[in-house]
Amino acid sequence: MLIVAERINASRKAIRAALERLDTAAIVNEVRIQAQAGAHYIDLNGGTFPGRETELLCWLVDTAQAETDLPLCIDSPDPDALAAALPRVRGERPMINSINLEPERFARVLPLAREHNAKLIALAQGEGVPAASAAEKVDLASLLVERLLAAGMVLDDIYVDPLVFPVGTDSASGLATVSAMREIMARFPGVHTICGLTNVSHGLPARKLVNRTFLAGAIANGMDAAIIDPTDTQLMATLYAAEAVFGRDEYCVNFIEAFQAGKLV
Amino acid sequence: MLIVAERINASRKAIRAALERLDTAAIVNEVRIQAQAGAHYIDLNGGTFPGRETELLCWLVDTAQAETDLPLCIDSPDPDALAAALPRVRGERPMINSINLEPERFARVLPLAREHNAKLIALAQGEGVPAASAAEKVDLASLLVERLLAAGMVLDDIYVDPLVFPVGTDSASGLATVSAMREIMARFPGVHTICGLTNVSHGLPARKLVNRTFLAGAIANGMDAAIIDPTDTQLMATLYAAEAVFGRDEYCVNFIEAFQAGKLV
Repeated sequence: MLIVAERINASRKAIRAALERLDTAAIVNEVRIQAQAGAHYIDLNGGTFPGRETELLCWLVDTAQAETDLPLCIDSPDPDALAAALPRVRGERPMINSINLEPERFARVLPLAREHNAKLIALAQGEGVPAASAAEKVDLASLLVERLLAAGMVLDDIYVDPLVFPVGTDSASGLATVSAMREIMARFPGVHTICGLTNVSHGLPARKLVNRTFLAGAIANGMDAAIIDPTDTQLMATLYAAEAVFGRDEYCVNFIEAFQAGKLV
Repeated sequence: MLIVAERINASRKAIRAALERLDTAAIVNEVRIQAQAGAHYIDLNGGTFPGRETELLCWLVDTAQAETDLPLCIDSPDPDALAAALPRVRGERPMINSINLEPERFARVLPLAREHNAKLIALAQGEGVPAASAAEKVDLASLLVERLLAAGMVLDDIYVDPLVFPVGTDSASGLATVSAMREIMARFPGVHTICGLTNVSHGLPARKLVNRTFLAGAIANGMDAAIIDPTDTQLMATLYAAEAVFGRDEYCVNFIEAFQAGKLV
């Protein structure tokens, strides 16, 4: 299970404040606690500060990789910011979060991924209304994967995100999303699926419970990567348990080790 | 989600002791706490006391239905005990736990289900080695369902249990089981799937975490009934969350109500 650590995101108040002050220590601390908690990638999202997106994303890249050797997930809807930040990445291959089927974004982001040998988070999203049903998600994702393959990307570098919507307003979205994951992975053996969990619980109480329950169901349908907060111990306990119970942890060795390390509380 | 409450089972020490003493108060208490916790059926398993199976199962039926109007799930591998206990059932239609493809058991239990208008838990199990892969589970379950349909049972009265094995020794069993559930429900629209959860975590630490994570993944693959302990609050919280997040709880009304009632702690 590939863990993309989500905490350095300008949608969080503390990160927004850190960005406004260029607070290196705050960002370094977020990198450190996520790395210690088991992150495989550190997502860097500099938000939408008018006119400063490029500067802040580049600052995040420099700040994060001064602290860690973990690979980075460069997270921006703005191709200009991606184009500026990616050349600064040293060490392991980065991931780009994200590409979709919007013509301009597709046309700008794909060459960046090719040039910087980056993995890609591919959203099942076109120009119109977002895909709601499992079939629509599979159709859009398939179109996107086929275009990426035609452009020379390989399946192992593609992480499809079917985009889950809040179940408080769209009750069918959770099942549609995990069903789409299963179908996409069956249609393109070797492709990965990924999801940001938190949107699913938007507007509900007990959000962490909802998020980790969704995680378990997604893993039970094949999802093999997730954009999560690895410092959430109950979420990580569910992740360890889901890997053990759904065939990703032979003889439950990792699960038992996590238990012995006191991580399953 | 149909909840078959599992606590009155002679494999539990306290129940075994209650059976040995014919301790009515202990059984009544178990009925009461499970009913209060949200049970839809009360499972009654009198164990294997040599020569006393029939007597004890009948005593459990009498004792339980003196306390509750909830329907009963009569749980015995012994057709003689079932044959003695079923005529004592008053009120709502009982469930029989269980039938399988073993010729004698099938031949004895099926007429009892027909005679007493009972629902049936149908195990994906023949005479030989239990089915391990998803395909084997689907094949055995399909054969059993087809034989039940041919004998006049209707799909809505059949609860298929694909039988999960401990993932500590058979890592693939969790995924095989939930995949089999999905495929069986696709092949026989209207049939139910059910599972006793606890076997999946046999031999592992943090068993309740494993069990509720498995529950979430099974619900994400269609399982619509479960043999569980409804007094396990974290398990029930996962159940509420899984129903909300996988499309069984429109606008998450039940989930929000459970939160407001303090049940999601």
